Amino acid sequence: MIKREKIKDILSSTEFNRETTVMGWVKTFRNNQFIALNDGSCMSNLQVVVDFANTPEEVLKKITTGAAISASGKLVESLGKGQKCEIKADSVQILGESDPEKFPLQPKKHSLEFLREIAHLRFRTNTFNAIFKVRNALSFAIHQFFNERGFVYLHTPIITASDAEGAGEMFRVTTLPFDDTPRTDSGEVDFKEDFFGRSANLTVSGQLEGELGAMALGEIYTFGPTFRAENSNTTRHLAEFWMIEPEVAFADLEDNMNLAEDLLKYVIRYAMDKCPDELAFLANRLAEEEKSKPQNQRSELDLMSKLNFCLENDFERVTYTEAIHILKHSKPNQKKQFKYLVEDWGVDLQSEHERYLVEKHFKKPVILTDYPADIKAFYMRMNEPDADGRKTVRAMDILFPGIGEMVGGSQREERLEKLQQRMQEMHIPEEELYWYLDTRRFGSAPHAGFGLGFERLVLFVTGMTNIRDVIPFPRFPKNAEF
Amino acid sequence: MIKREKIKDILSSTEFNRETTVMGWVKTFRNNQFIALNDGSCMSNLQVVVDFANTPEEVLKKITTGAAISASGKLVESLGKGQKCEIKADSVQILGESDPEKFPLQPKKHSLEFLREIAHLRFRTNTFNAIFKVRNALSFAIHQFFNERGFVYLHTPIITASDAEGAGEMFRVTTLPFDDTPRTDSGEVDFKEDFFGRSANLTVSGQLEGELGAMALGEIYTFGPTFRAENSNTTRHLAEFWMIEPEVAFADLEDNMNLAEDLLKYVIRYAMDKCPDELAFLANRLAEEEKSKPQNQRSELDLMSKLNFCLENDFERVTYTEAIHILKHSKPNQKKQFKYLVEDWGVDLQSEHERYLVEKHFKKPVILTDYPADIKAFYMRMNEPDADGRKTVRAMDILFPGIGEMVGGSQREERLEKLQQRMQEMHIPEEELYWYLDTRRFGSAPHAGFGLGFERLVLFVTGMTNIRDVIPFPRFPKNAEF
Repeated sequence: MIKREKIKDILSSTEFNRETTVMGWVKTFRNNQFIALNDGSCMSNLQVVVDFANTPEEVLKKITTGAAISASGKLVESLGKGQKCEIKADSVQILGESDPEKFPLQPKKHSLEFLREIAHLRFRTNTFNAIFKVRNALSFAIHQFFNERGFVYLHTPIITASDAEGAGEMFRVTTLPFDDTPRTDSGEVDFKEDFFGRSANLTVSGQLEGELGAMALGEIYTFGPTFRAENSNTTRHLAEFWMIEPEVAFADLEDNMNLAEDLLKYVIRYAMDKCPDELAFLANRLAEEEKSKPQNQRSELDLMSKLNFCLENDFERVTYTEAIHILKHSKPNQKKQFKYLVEDWGVDLQSEHERYLVEKHFKKPVILTDYPADIKAFYMRMNEPDADGRKTVRAMDILFPGIGEMVGGSQREERLEKLQQRMQEMHIPEEELYWYLDTRRFGSAPHAGFGLGFERLVLFVTGMTNIRDVIPFPRFPKNAEF
Repeated sequence: MIKREKIKDILSSTEFNRETTVMGWVKTFRNNQFIALNDGSCMSNLQVVVDFANTPEEVLKKITTGAAISASGKLVESLGKGQKCEIKADSVQILGESDPEKFPLQPKKHSLEFLREIAHLRFRTNTFNAIFKVRNALSFAIHQFFNERGFVYLHTPIITASDAEGAGEMFRVTTLPFDDTPRTDSGEVDFKEDFFGRSANLTVSGQLEGELGAMALGEIYTFGPTFRAENSNTTRHLAEFWMIEPEVAFADLEDNMNLAEDLLKYVIRYAMDKCPDELAFLANRLAEEEKSKPQNQRSELDLMSKLNFCLENDFERVTYTEAIHILKHSKPNQKKQFKYLVEDWGVDLQSEHERYLVEKHFKKPVILTDYPADIKAFYMRMNEPDADGRKTVRAMDILFPGIGEMVGGSQREERLEKLQQRMQEMHIPEEELYWYLDTRRFGSAPHAGFGLGFERLVLFVTGMTNIRDVIPFPRFPKNAEF
């Protein structure tokens, strides 16, 4: 078809008084003359001035919000304020109409709740255009970061038969029927008859398979979907979400912390460089949202300050044991302002504690290390017991302002006997993970890695507050629409 | 831990007579003196020369194939042939042993079948190092190509409740139990009780959701896993595979063909630029494999020629109708050498026909267009019937040497009534796809897209012949190992 020019390119063009063609969707149409046109290439609209005297009445009538049009004419410098240039259209063609009585996106403010109901159309709003541009920039930045450092992007499996990690409830993947399900002689479901010849699930993490890659290729990362069948109807949980999991051979926890800090700074900076308009819009949106909150619930930092907070500070590295000490003696703990008071070593930290450390105490992103072994996964490397005989592991969590945990990682237990002992204690059958143990049998080496929940990163960078708004089609309990 | 230098960097270094540390896995150990060390960063090994007089016997004993070691010493120019430099090690530390009696990867040629059984260790072989480096390069090239052109990377859902596309058998995703499955009063399985409140599956394609994105953001692409529950135990099928699906608003079939041709040339060129050693190795591997075949089954083109064949030729664009005419009058058809003889317009083409067109007739990659409507999907744009009243759609398939179909795409039916009519004819219930139809109700516009099976691309570029060898952990009937 005839070549159209993207609005993004036109708006940055300095070559005026030339003929061009644009195509896009009508945002508004004023005075039978001024079309605000958007084609998705950027947030800004282009003004198209219709020659209404020479445009048939039936065409003018169809220039309504949401309609798709093609407009050809001369690109000229604009006399009006608010725009640099506009198109004086010789001809306007209606590509697809949009009945104003039925089109749900009228030129007014819609609630995020309403837009979630029409997720198939919300891409056309400024807010979601901005969110998905930022999401795209962050995705690319992640690939570019690892590519520059020679990491291999590894596609770990989505369907797994292993459910040993215990990271959460899993979805079953099956082709067995619920009616007349094949049964063994003893009456149990006969998974030998299932597609994979055994019971299979959707992965909760690519880490264990990622380790297999790292223990040969050196440095790998995954970036793929992961799943939790948890019945959590919150603004922070999804049943389907994307995760980035790098894994590095010949690396310890310090290398791991350096890598994670570098990655986060790199991708935030990239988004700020590539999406200034989108972030400015989202910062403004957040500021408006904050205004509607009571003073004491407002965030101290606006969006750009929050992003800069992460770029400009070295992340503070603190052990769990030190953090417990700080929290125990903190004002909110002593004045019993925490919902969960910090008393004993060994408890898991709550979001309020994490935010206190980041926002009040250190005023920096914080990396907490060396958590109690009892609250962490089997594959984390065991430290020597401390002077009080307490057992910790080489774990690290990165805590961010407003959002709490952004990254969780660890140095892995590379010593076969220690790993086997931990698995036994945690009732993880060795035969299910023989392949994982093989990496410790044949050329084991120190290695470390972490997981970064991608939607949590997008939430943080866009300043959105509901995770369902930063993934195109969110999946959660009772919802798999579109 | 102490900073190691990657072998890839050492081998390209020109700064000799300096101290350094390397870590990696022992490939071979000769004469109690010469270690061939690999750390995954490149295919080449680095020679580490052990000072065996000053190295304890118990360390020497543990330098076995597969063991992980750390070696420190001076990087010197090598006197031996076959390598530019080597490390004169002052100290060698064993990081992880590898019992020579048990380690399955001995320094000899292993069959691909055997390596598939130990997919968790096969990354350590030259062949799989090369394959996964090429796979990584192709992945990055795809992201970079679309990023340069302003496309938005869209994560379309993996779990879907829609099964309307009919692209193939689907896997069920469920949390319902097989025992005491919830039932409605009429005795049917009560999917309202399932996690998503309805029956849900693993996606077979992100296209329909991708179209929703394109009809707002302009240009999008997906790159994610897709699934088929087909009981095909072949060298060409996987139950879980990765697909790239771009979708472009204001584009027709010609734009679509241009985009696909540009993409394929870009990513093949990128792999050739970034992975010369890996491709040389794989070309050699393929040449060896070919030698073992009878003369008449050998490929006419070696790997590099096949890749250049795609870069150097404009893809030939031919309608299905023309192709049928060519095939009908071709020698193999007239001499009845085709297994499936081409007689009537309307039949689907077989791999032998596709390869004849590419390899014998045109001697170029071929794009076949305008297929009979009856053998294509409901969403493809209907052409006007031809002089004989035959109905075709604006579909295109790209055919490659050796492999047949590499890309399948189409201009989409943007006209609401035509689309509804097709859906009715094909018994696709409108209410299930109301959201898809909404894009035609509100600002519809011409648009087009295609799907590229990622593993098929990796097969083509690596010259491998079994699709299970180009994905880290293949899933197929009766197999979800690792």
